[in-house]
Amino acid sequence: MSPKITTELLKQLRQVMKSPKYVQEPVQAYIVPSGDAHQSEYIAPCDCRRAFISGFDGSAGTAIVTEQHAAMWTDGRYFLQAAHQMDSNWTLMKMGLKDTPSQEDWLVSVLPEGSKVGVDPFIIPADQWKRMSKALRSAGHDLVPVKENLIDTIWTDCPQRPCKPLITLDLSYTGVSWRDKIVALRSKMAERKVLWFVVTALDEVAWLFNLRGSDVEYNPVFFAYAVIGMNTIRLLIDGDRMMDPAVREHLQLDSTLEPEFKIQVMPYGSILSELQAVGAGLSPKEKVWLSDKASYALTEAIPKAYRYLTPYTPICIAKAVKNTSETEGMRRAHIKDAVALCELFNWLEKEVVPKGTVTEIIAADKAEEFRSQQKDFVELSFATISSTGPNGAIIHYKPVPETNRTLSVNEIYLLDSGAQYKDGTTDVTRTMHFGTPSAYEKECFTYVLKGHIAVSAAIFPNGTKGHLLDSFARSALWDCGLDYLHGTGHGVGSFLNVHEGPCGISYKTFADEPLEAGMIVSDEPGYYEDGSFGVRIENVVLVIAAETKYNFKNRGSLTFEPLTLVPIQTKMIDVTLLTQKECNWVNDYHQKCREVIGAELEQQGRHEALRWLIRETEPLSRVQ
Amino acid sequence: MSPKITTELLKQLRQVMKSPKYVQEPVQAYIVPSGDAHQSEYIAPCDCRRAFISGFDGSAGTAIVTEQHAAMWTDGRYFLQAAHQMDSNWTLMKMGLKDTPSQEDWLVSVLPEGSKVGVDPFIIPADQWKRMSKALRSAGHDLVPVKENLIDTIWTDCPQRPCKPLITLDLSYTGVSWRDKIVALRSKMAERKVLWFVVTALDEVAWLFNLRGSDVEYNPVFFAYAVIGMNTIRLLIDGDRMMDPAVREHLQLDSTLEPEFKIQVMPYGSILSELQAVGAGLSPKEKVWLSDKASYALTEAIPKAYRYLTPYTPICIAKAVKNTSETEGMRRAHIKDAVALCELFNWLEKEVVPKGTVTEIIAADKAEEFRSQQKDFVELSFATISSTGPNGAIIHYKPVPETNRTLSVNEIYLLDSGAQYKDGTTDVTRTMHFGTPSAYEKECFTYVLKGHIAVSAAIFPNGTKGHLLDSFARSALWDCGLDYLHGTGHGVGSFLNVHEGPCGISYKTFADEPLEAGMIVSDEPGYYEDGSFGVRIENVVLVIAAETKYNFKNRGSLTFEPLTLVPIQTKMIDVTLLTQKECNWVNDYHQKCREVIGAELEQQGRHEALRWLIRETEPLSRVQ
Repeated sequence: MSPKITTELLKQLRQVMKSPKYVQEPVQAYIVPSGDAHQSEYIAPCDCRRAFISGFDGSAGTAIVTEQHAAMWTDGRYFLQAAHQMDSNWTLMKMGLKDTPSQEDWLVSVLPEGSKVGVDPFIIPADQWKRMSKALRSAGHDLVPVKENLIDTIWTDCPQRPCKPLITLDLSYTGVSWRDKIVALRSKMAERKVLWFVVTALDEVAWLFNLRGSDVEYNPVFFAYAVIGMNTIRLLIDGDRMMDPAVREHLQLDSTLEPEFKIQVMPYGSILSELQAVGAGLSPKEKVWLSDKASYALTEAIPKAYRYLTPYTPICIAKAVKNTSETEGMRRAHIKDAVALCELFNWLEKEVVPKGTVTEIIAADKAEEFRSQQKDFVELSFATISSTGPNGAIIHYKPVPETNRTLSVNEIYLLDSGAQYKDGTTDVTRTMHFGTPSAYEKECFTYVLKGHIAVSAAIFPNGTKGHLLDSFARSALWDCGLDYLHGTGHGVGSFLNVHEGPCGISYKTFADEPLEAGMIVSDEPGYYEDGSFGVRIENVVLVIAAETKYNFKNRGSLTFEPLTLVPIQTKMIDVTLLTQKECNWVNDYHQKCREVIGAELEQQGRHEALRWLIRETEPLSRVQ
Repeated sequence: MSPKITTELLKQLRQVMKSPKYVQEPVQAYIVPSGDAHQSEYIAPCDCRRAFISGFDGSAGTAIVTEQHAAMWTDGRYFLQAAHQMDSNWTLMKMGLKDTPSQEDWLVSVLPEGSKVGVDPFIIPADQWKRMSKALRSAGHDLVPVKENLIDTIWTDCPQRPCKPLITLDLSYTGVSWRDKIVALRSKMAERKVLWFVVTALDEVAWLFNLRGSDVEYNPVFFAYAVIGMNTIRLLIDGDRMMDPAVREHLQLDSTLEPEFKIQVMPYGSILSELQAVGAGLSPKEKVWLSDKASYALTEAIPKAYRYLTPYTPICIAKAVKNTSETEGMRRAHIKDAVALCELFNWLEKEVVPKGTVTEIIAADKAEEFRSQQKDFVELSFATISSTGPNGAIIHYKPVPETNRTLSVNEIYLLDSGAQYKDGTTDVTRTMHFGTPSAYEKECFTYVLKGHIAVSAAIFPNGTKGHLLDSFARSALWDCGLDYLHGTGHGVGSFLNVHEGPCGISYKTFADEPLEAGMIVSDEPGYYEDGSFGVRIENVVLVIAAETKYNFKNRGSLTFEPLTLVPIQTKMIDVTLLTQKECNWVNDYHQKCREVIGAELEQQGRHEALRWLIRETEPLSRVQ
């Protein structure tokens, strides 16, 4: 990795920061956040503005450029990468270290009195704007919205915004028609007494209309907004995608419909004027519902008195609770995914042990190849983490030629991967040893497994928030002085984003929504020994009702059912560290893998993988 | 309980709400909150203004009186009591029910346009003012501070503000002199670049100066404020308490001291003018540190630009971490407390079983009598919860003649009690059966015990917040569909308030400070069967360093050591539900009770109680 030379680019940026063509008054600093206009976690190449200006292309980072300085804030995952990718024009601001100033404090320390700080109002979320603006104002500066994105003005070979064809999903996948979703949304709007709801998150637009796209890698979404009124539906989307007969049929664009279900298609770029028109037409007590993470530009389009902001939108909450069609789809997707992984692990065992020719990249590619053989495969759901030995200790590792190691019988191999199938999204991590693991490696693996089981088998009351389960995953590690520095689980979409709100299992959050039956989350505790190895055991699990002996206050109880059905390598387990209950859990789980995945392997005629599965699911026996 | 007749009082209040003598302009509504000027949990009789105007004397409630209405907001614990204590002038607003309006919404619905809503600015915390004021303003009304408390103007027989003698605590109790506490505080102030710190919480004033009082029942505090500068110490306190030679000596009021340790004594009532003077003398960048829970009046005395507000003050955080002298004192206090309880339980067994003449009130009084025989006993630390049968299911029960039940061999008895000793504060709950408990009662008790042990024996990394341990206490109950609707633990003061911040163990909080060695909290899971019985097992536990096999990132680990050493009734335990580890925990705990409390009983010549202790601490044996 050699750093990107940015001297000329920064010079150009500093010029446009003063150019009356783009700014009313010169700005003394310009902020380049990571995100896109939809606050997406994964972004399209045309939105990688921070990477363009700095060279640093990690998933999190904010660049600020002033007359004299260029600084990049990022977190501990990316200190090394950012240092490698950026040239000497840039100062790396290591977030989380005691002496690193906040962006606000740094700006105040370097700016001349009464400065203007510019930012693209479509990229910065309203809550961040508020915080930053307040801090700057109290030091005599001003945060100002710069309508035209200044990076775009100098990015001559900026890729086009993707505009790929859409996929329509019928009822057998979605369970609920888009019309019924609109009806349910309007009833939530009526409950809260709001007249309009603005859909800004890409996965929420996709879910609402039962459409999928491929504008962003790994996330089957497309660039669009929607504005839903009590009697109107506006879909703001570009390109000729609305000319596709299947899409027209799906959205009933050419049918005679009740007016309240007639979809008005408008250009993607007209969202601001559209919202301004909505805002201008409001009478007192008429409210517009937006996510509090929507961009400053869209939030400001609605006069303050008319805004109704919530951390989670009604679509976000409805989307998280999967219906029967969706859970059945997720089950099918996980069965196919397990078939692919059984094939992979069987292949690795044959290839790795005798030949020593398989690298992390080859293994990742092979995993994708096996997945792509499965029905309704669309793409991967995130960049495969294929890591062996010390690379396994890098939590967000992605193999590249510079770091690519060869799998061997001497190192632990960690594979965290998943796919998008038309019927569901998968995300699974398995940690294996192809030789003989050390007692210490087995010990650590077993603690992680105990944590995985503690969450998976937990019974808890309806209404419990996921963050309250996080400690269950850590207890066995804590007992020995060990821990891991990431959350235990995230929400998973149904043929949608592999990370979605509003639920999860993490000590870092508090404002998560309570778990309820039908929600789907990951259960993925780990342990990472720097420079040595990493262990993580991840299943995607479905929240289901639990039968309990009693039923306090008639609240009902919940538990989890694993959707992921891939053997957990018993060779890595120190059985003496398991309780009888834990041992039974492993055996029951493996029995289910054998039955369900075994039948599918049989049906697909994958006999070698089936033999591997049978061997890997032999019951443990616990010496008393 | 007959309701208080408030017709005449409300008439008088409505008159003063319009009287130019007290208000610049008439106020159309007047808010009477629960608290005092220090945001204390327990308040003095002269501060029980809400009880005076309404008759309702529960610990939580807010009254609002308008021209036509009088309304009382309180929570589920007090619906019944409030309904009994208030006459028909009052409307009960049941908080937590769906159809109950918030105070703001209700005010907006009943007030004529452009109304003024008055409140005593010394009683309302600044953050509550802000919320209420914003809501009213957006509906066209105004929240206005009314300097003179309007209740006080009509409360002709209002008791005087207590002004009782002070107790001085020497180094053997406190471990750190007040001078050294001032030095440490000033260094925290320097770190945050603040010039002044205003001590508003009563327990923080008491802790800082190593003084105790008895102005408020159960809490050994006294009415005072302190204002600490980098070179000045101002103590605002009334009465002739500063004439006491012991106090003068303790505070070195008559010694020649370096000026920065010279305490200026000022009248309690001069706090506002004192702070206004401080505020007026500030230059830019000079800050004054206040709790964000300080009253609106005091917060407003400092111009906004100069305020530095935090949820927890440096004193609150320092006070929570007990030093060796304090923990040794707490140990002594808990030994004495255990002696008193062994006497009590032995006495109850003798009295209850054969005679049936002991009521909840008699038992509570007897507990106090036994405690008062112990050295350095000062008073109880809270109103004793002495409850049998169905009364045990009322979590905040306090026996009164109308509810007083007789202890019997047929019901579970729950005693939650504690005391203030000069060397420490105790808080312990034991649940006993004097006859033969049912299998179901034993089952529930055992789940609660498993939860108690899970917290007490938990090992967790340094830096863990207490709320992450809350689920450990519930897991065994959850497994069977049971739960309890209160937090698991609270911070405990050292001869100070029995409830103190900033740490605790509760799913309800998130902003608690991380646990660290030396902190003291309660561990008190429970189970409550409405109309039938209550179970709670509470120890006070000390956070200590834990030895672990490994030490991830050199963070170190913590665990708890029980300070409470009172037998847990083995008769109530269903041993078959315990794991071997849990069984060992009970036996080890009882062995320690036997050794430590046995020795003390022996020394105090309490032979009958000793025999009771020996019998109650017989080891459990678990059938494999």
